[in-house]
Amino acid sequence: MPQTCKTHLECSLCSKIFDAGRAWNLCDCGGPLLVRYDLARLRAEWPRESLTGAVNSMWRYAPALPVSHPNSIVSLGEGMTPLLTTRRTGNRIGAHNLVIKDEGLNPTGSFKARGLSCAISMCVEMGVKVLAIPSAGNAASALSAYAAAAGLEAHIFMPADVPQANFIECKAYGAHVTLVDGLISDCGRIVGEKCKTTAGQPGAWFDISTLKEPYRIEGKKTMGYELAEQLNWILPDAILYPAGGGVGMIGMWKAFVEMEALGWISSKRPKMIAVQATGCQPIVRAFEEGTEASRFWDGASTVAAGLRVPKPLGDRLTLQAVRESAGCAIAVSDRDLMDAGIRLASEEGIFAAPEGASCVAATERLIREGFLKPDDQIVVYNTGSGLKYLEAYSVRFPRTAAGQTDKLGGLITPR
Amino acid sequence: MPQTCKTHLECSLCSKIFDAGRAWNLCDCGGPLLVRYDLARLRAEWPRESLTGAVNSMWRYAPALPVSHPNSIVSLGEGMTPLLTTRRTGNRIGAHNLVIKDEGLNPTGSFKARGLSCAISMCVEMGVKVLAIPSAGNAASALSAYAAAAGLEAHIFMPADVPQANFIECKAYGAHVTLVDGLISDCGRIVGEKCKTTAGQPGAWFDISTLKEPYRIEGKKTMGYELAEQLNWILPDAILYPAGGGVGMIGMWKAFVEMEALGWISSKRPKMIAVQATGCQPIVRAFEEGTEASRFWDGASTVAAGLRVPKPLGDRLTLQAVRESAGCAIAVSDRDLMDAGIRLASEEGIFAAPEGASCVAATERLIREGFLKPDDQIVVYNTGSGLKYLEAYSVRFPRTAAGQTDKLGGLITPR
Repeated sequence: MPQTCKTHLECSLCSKIFDAGRAWNLCDCGGPLLVRYDLARLRAEWPRESLTGAVNSMWRYAPALPVSHPNSIVSLGEGMTPLLTTRRTGNRIGAHNLVIKDEGLNPTGSFKARGLSCAISMCVEMGVKVLAIPSAGNAASALSAYAAAAGLEAHIFMPADVPQANFIECKAYGAHVTLVDGLISDCGRIVGEKCKTTAGQPGAWFDISTLKEPYRIEGKKTMGYELAEQLNWILPDAILYPAGGGVGMIGMWKAFVEMEALGWISSKRPKMIAVQATGCQPIVRAFEEGTEASRFWDGASTVAAGLRVPKPLGDRLTLQAVRESAGCAIAVSDRDLMDAGIRLASEEGIFAAPEGASCVAATERLIREGFLKPDDQIVVYNTGSGLKYLEAYSVRFPRTAAGQTDKLGGLITPR
Repeated sequence: MPQTCKTHLECSLCSKIFDAGRAWNLCDCGGPLLVRYDLARLRAEWPRESLTGAVNSMWRYAPALPVSHPNSIVSLGEGMTPLLTTRRTGNRIGAHNLVIKDEGLNPTGSFKARGLSCAISMCVEMGVKVLAIPSAGNAASALSAYAAAAGLEAHIFMPADVPQANFIECKAYGAHVTLVDGLISDCGRIVGEKCKTTAGQPGAWFDISTLKEPYRIEGKKTMGYELAEQLNWILPDAILYPAGGGVGMIGMWKAFVEMEALGWISSKRPKMIAVQATGCQPIVRAFEEGTEASRFWDGASTVAAGLRVPKPLGDRLTLQAVRESAGCAIAVSDRDLMDAGIRLASEEGIFAAPEGASCVAATERLIREGFLKPDDQIVVYNTGSGLKYLEAYSVRFPRTAAGQTDKLGGLITPR
């Protein structure tokens, strides 16, 4: 089994070719670069049966990942997350084959671990030493953790209202944290400028923003490989994915194309359904207007921090996957997604991020509207742990004051 | 491969025998009950080679677990946590073969998930419907989650100063939460009384406190099975485990005995090292005084909530494992364990619970004192995620105020 069969990078917009194994950001034309592999060779040398008993992390798919040397891999146990059957939620909302892929069990509590495990491994391989990222939360935590594990320097730029969990994680992991009195787009601009001014110098900052950097998506695509393996190589009827940047969905779509070329799956594709919040829904608007790209969403606001992306860089690729799969894009309100989160916790024991919960709310509506059928096999990705969103959930569960009693118990003083 | 080979329960103190598969608490003599298996039959029918490609959770060891029917199993993906090589911490403290078993990646962010997955599965099998627990934190979260997944009723009694993460989790999972203006021992007394007064009635409360209930330890012992499998069936030279109740260590010790009877491992045992906090060290005191049991630790106080157990029910069994293995018991200060936690995060990308971090601090001291050798293979269990202890870590990382700058960045206002 080869360590990797990557051949080159290719611009997703203009198809220009780039050397693999060098530190690139976007194409000259502004398009995100994607890694290409010698899939014919992989097909011959890497049968899916060889996975049995292999590594218990996303690195079991190493031949279809870009890292050349096993020693470069920086792993904290990311991937191989459980696919959980629902016992009550599915039946209540009329989706009788609803399963949840629980990405909250990744290191740093979110799917972001996959992308950054892959990207940081490539940094180790390419000799990149200093990394910078704008992030509303979980990507910052994951970058900080993997940079710490690799001994690299990480610079984080976060909106000042970032959840406490992400702030503390980044600080504990030893990252250089700057709180910005603005939006993630402001953070992105600051990172971009700093990278430009240090370029070519020793200690230059490398922008590791998703899709501006071509390897994070390779880690994220393993969500697709794993799902196929867990479902015995038959993809489901529909996948609901919370689309902030949308790269998780783009990555899975890429994985499906690769796996078909490997002979691992048929040409059957699930409906890819992008879920957003009503307070920030550029992909939904573009989908409904029939345009290829999205427009900046003014006044972006939602409790689901990961969905607060007003103009995702991967909008075109996300919309492509949605349309080619006969899926759709749908927005749910903050109230509905928080309600769905609390019901998912109390009915299934899964304490989901609001982003993941939004997909459960969306499933309920799409079943009601007939877009999804009661017997469809439906997979919802919970992209992170509810533990990262204590502030959001706390609003619903105020701490009982001394002497008071709520209907679920209360505070008592023992004799 | 049989689903289970359990035969009976046996009192760990007086060896009295009890029927397997019924809902028991302690023996009449006050001793905790342990599950026994037909290990000879298992040895014949369950070779370790059959594990390859098996279930990706602790339920891969189902034949050595007590559940009779696969349909009873309530699983959220617990177990199969990564064993992480340290790159910098080990070398810095002079332990060159230090690995971390990261239990923080379990559902609900701690090793407690293992015990409660097993115990709740047995409740489903035995028809127990209402559960109660006194808990300082993570056991409550795990009980709440698994009870929700099984559709059972959970009553939680927590000290009023319990971390916010645990409080919110329990509420979101739909448990009945009572905050008690007292210690965990007060909570335990309240639960005990309520169970006594409802016994025999419909909706009787079942006390699912660890070791008072005989199946949680069976889930916890899978930490031992997994470690052996991950180390290719050769146990390490030393295991450091944060001992609050101590049941994780007792469970592993039981697993080692079982695995030797199965022919899976040799008679080699690691030094079992129980780590406590200086503010609550009943096991350390008993170890040093040479007594078989511990005495109640007055004024228990430590930031590591899981170590705040003034008189563990499993003290005798913990001390037995420590002594039979030529291990030791050692206490570290809150300052040292928090320092170790922050260094582990920044050096390895592992954001550990203070309990897990205490074992790294202890390793450093035991290497310095010569009790552990630089080339020993040392396994530290990080029992939970640092995310559950944001209040504790926040003290070290105050949020930067507007306009201020700390040495790792600061808050800036973009133009």
